[in-house]
Amino acid sequence: MKKFILFLLLPVFTQGQQNDTAFIKKISDEVLQNGQAYELLHYLTKKIGGRLAGSPQYNQAVKWGVATCKSFGSDTVFLQECLVPNWKRGTGDFATLIANNSTKKSLSITAVGNALGSFKTITAPLLFVENFDELEKKKHEVKGKIVYFNAGFNPTNIRTFKSYSETGIYRGSSASRAAKYGALGVIIRSLSEATDNFPHTGAMKYNDSFPKIPAVCVGIQDADYLAANAKNNQWKISMKTHGKMLADTINHNVVAELRGTEFPEKYITIGGHLDSWDICEGAHDDGAGIVQTLEILRAFKVLGYQPKHTIRFVLFANEENGLRGGLKYAALAKDNNENHIFALESDAGGFTPRGFSFSMSKEKLAAIQHWLPLLKPYGTEFLELGGGGADIGPLYRTFGTPIAGFIPDSQRYFDVHHAPSDTFEKVNKRELLLGAVNMAALIYLVDKYGL
Amino acid sequence: MKKFILFLLLPVFTQGQQNDTAFIKKISDEVLQNGQAYELLHYLTKKIGGRLAGSPQYNQAVKWGVATCKSFGSDTVFLQECLVPNWKRGTGDFATLIANNSTKKSLSITAVGNALGSFKTITAPLLFVENFDELEKKKHEVKGKIVYFNAGFNPTNIRTFKSYSETGIYRGSSASRAAKYGALGVIIRSLSEATDNFPHTGAMKYNDSFPKIPAVCVGIQDADYLAANAKNNQWKISMKTHGKMLADTINHNVVAELRGTEFPEKYITIGGHLDSWDICEGAHDDGAGIVQTLEILRAFKVLGYQPKHTIRFVLFANEENGLRGGLKYAALAKDNNENHIFALESDAGGFTPRGFSFSMSKEKLAAIQHWLPLLKPYGTEFLELGGGGADIGPLYRTFGTPIAGFIPDSQRYFDVHHAPSDTFEKVNKRELLLGAVNMAALIYLVDKYGL
Repeated sequence: MKKFILFLLLPVFTQGQQNDTAFIKKISDEVLQNGQAYELLHYLTKKIGGRLAGSPQYNQAVKWGVATCKSFGSDTVFLQECLVPNWKRGTGDFATLIANNSTKKSLSITAVGNALGSFKTITAPLLFVENFDELEKKKHEVKGKIVYFNAGFNPTNIRTFKSYSETGIYRGSSASRAAKYGALGVIIRSLSEATDNFPHTGAMKYNDSFPKIPAVCVGIQDADYLAANAKNNQWKISMKTHGKMLADTINHNVVAELRGTEFPEKYITIGGHLDSWDICEGAHDDGAGIVQTLEILRAFKVLGYQPKHTIRFVLFANEENGLRGGLKYAALAKDNNENHIFALESDAGGFTPRGFSFSMSKEKLAAIQHWLPLLKPYGTEFLELGGGGADIGPLYRTFGTPIAGFIPDSQRYFDVHHAPSDTFEKVNKRELLLGAVNMAALIYLVDKYGL
Repeated sequence: MKKFILFLLLPVFTQGQQNDTAFIKKISDEVLQNGQAYELLHYLTKKIGGRLAGSPQYNQAVKWGVATCKSFGSDTVFLQECLVPNWKRGTGDFATLIANNSTKKSLSITAVGNALGSFKTITAPLLFVENFDELEKKKHEVKGKIVYFNAGFNPTNIRTFKSYSETGIYRGSSASRAAKYGALGVIIRSLSEATDNFPHTGAMKYNDSFPKIPAVCVGIQDADYLAANAKNNQWKISMKTHGKMLADTINHNVVAELRGTEFPEKYITIGGHLDSWDICEGAHDDGAGIVQTLEILRAFKVLGYQPKHTIRFVLFANEENGLRGGLKYAALAKDNNENHIFALESDAGGFTPRGFSFSMSKEKLAAIQHWLPLLKPYGTEFLELGGGGADIGPLYRTFGTPIAGFIPDSQRYFDVHHAPSDTFEKVNKRELLLGAVNMAALIYLVDKYGL
């Protein structure tokens, strides 16, 4: 009897798996043969370029995003208005190393995002510290100086995001930590292991209790130069920066939908963030996530896929220096009493796929491990706990919605992250498209089987 | 009783695994912190450059390889002499598209390796064919023409080596296939999906039954242009090439050894090929494999690792257009009655690791699957059947020696393979080093447990 039941059930299961295998292959073939993500990325990076919150380029990107979603046949496209920080870098920032009262070296620097400018040249002795521990030890030497923080990536971490999370605090809080002891400015080793000398920007936050001093990141070659020489020399730094924080301004999330056939009131979200830092093209961060999101919309429509749930393709505003787009998306979902069953973000670069990282219960994750063989042929090796995406984090925190982050290979990401080297040319077409394939396949499975 | 035995055995097994985990972590930390592979690659690609068999650069590379092995502390270094083909490309090759008796477009071409030159300008009508099937159908139209073969990579193959193996025959045999029907020359779509227009060379072989006509590969943008336009136009091609095959000359394999402590007469080989095509720096192909091989020697010595078996670090000669180095290595092993228990080659680029592909029995492969968890943290996802490496293939065919190929991610490889774009700048330091980590870990396990 048991055997008989097994006999009845097995073919059904096999049939389902065969259908899934076949449909995922269809997605893959469509994306790899006819995918437009690479060409879209070219437009976004080369015709629009850097698109920080509050910039004219961000608004151009919104128009382009809306037009692209319409041209790909989404059922609806709408905007979600949100107030975003309006930070302007200004022009003419510099930092120069001074030895014996003459210029020794012009440093490759970029102001840290949200930092306020000096607007006048500050010249002060350089104080070298490896990390916050050393800062604390030397706190009586800090006053009137420009502090250089040398804390670097740990190269032995296999996944580079671990290194980023370990050192991110230096970019984020060095200015106020040093200002507390009277520093006039800070220079921070870029959060990177790049072999070039581009400086890497990124967000920082002042502690309102202390003076808001200028903060810049320095390229890795110059950082290595300082690390090798600054301790044994009585050097000074001359620096000038021009950052201004203006009043908040209005930006928009772009939201396109394919309406669900069975559960139109239940939402699955796929997205990336449309903003980027101003000093780069934002190709990997996060042009890649944007064009993968658009590519999945295109492929689903071309394949005639009619989702059970309503799928939302979301281009989030202001991830880089405020997260206001992601916060607004969850707030509106709450106001409108929406039912969000899953959200997926691509914001780790357009590199070759390796897996997905989820924030949801262990039990839910265990229940979908049987999807892995369907995804493996396309590069996904793991479905693991521990991730999501900055923009979809508020959905998780508001509703407990299961969320996931697409995890591509991380080795090259921080070479270009937030740096002028994050250009279209650093993105490989096949790697970018394969990311879209794996994301689309996961969305298809969630839509079909739920979570 | 059973339980008691289990209790006794389990800690031993766990202890062994812990030791392996710890030692592989040591290897990884050493390579990622202090690895010199990237700097070695810079020298090989920028100071020596392209190093085809028979070129002065190849001999420079041999001297550099010997010196590097000595400086890294190998027990012995010796050379293995072999006769290699001595093909010279010459200078001044071109192919021009002619419409209405005037130049329409200069094509981005490179002569296929081993092809003989025309040494005079040939001008003839262009005949477009998609593939050999179409050539056969049009065989009566071929005489007196220059045939263009449009067979391209199938973008839906997830692993790009599949596409390469499917289309490789066009580069290898189009000249003789067309010459059979009276063609005066052939132009072949480069074996690539690159988005740039660099032409990709590589080896070909004439069928001695037919005239040895010139053969060139054309960059993908020009190939797409021909594909879109050549069928509907009465175009001609003017081309001139200068390839010469001189008499065989002498090159050398470089062989360095760490002598085994328990089984010095049993050999484990790690290698790559030291030669490259002349039109590129040979960074991914196969500078990466060479410097990974050297890096493993360096790391083993620094860590004080004393292998049980003799480990040979081999820089093979003439993989690209003759395989004479690999053939000689196996022939000498046979002459000297050597016992080779395993060989590993890295010749698929210096990209992020994905796995290893073996030629050996299914049973042997099944028996080492429990190594996978030890390698997974460093990027190895699979130990599968089906591979090896060109240079170590003769060992497998001669002795049945188990062999394996290191399989990095393949998405970017054919963008640069055999093209001027295969430069140092296309190699990422961390990806390169991680390859060496995974290879070293596998060698360590084979040395410790046998195969």
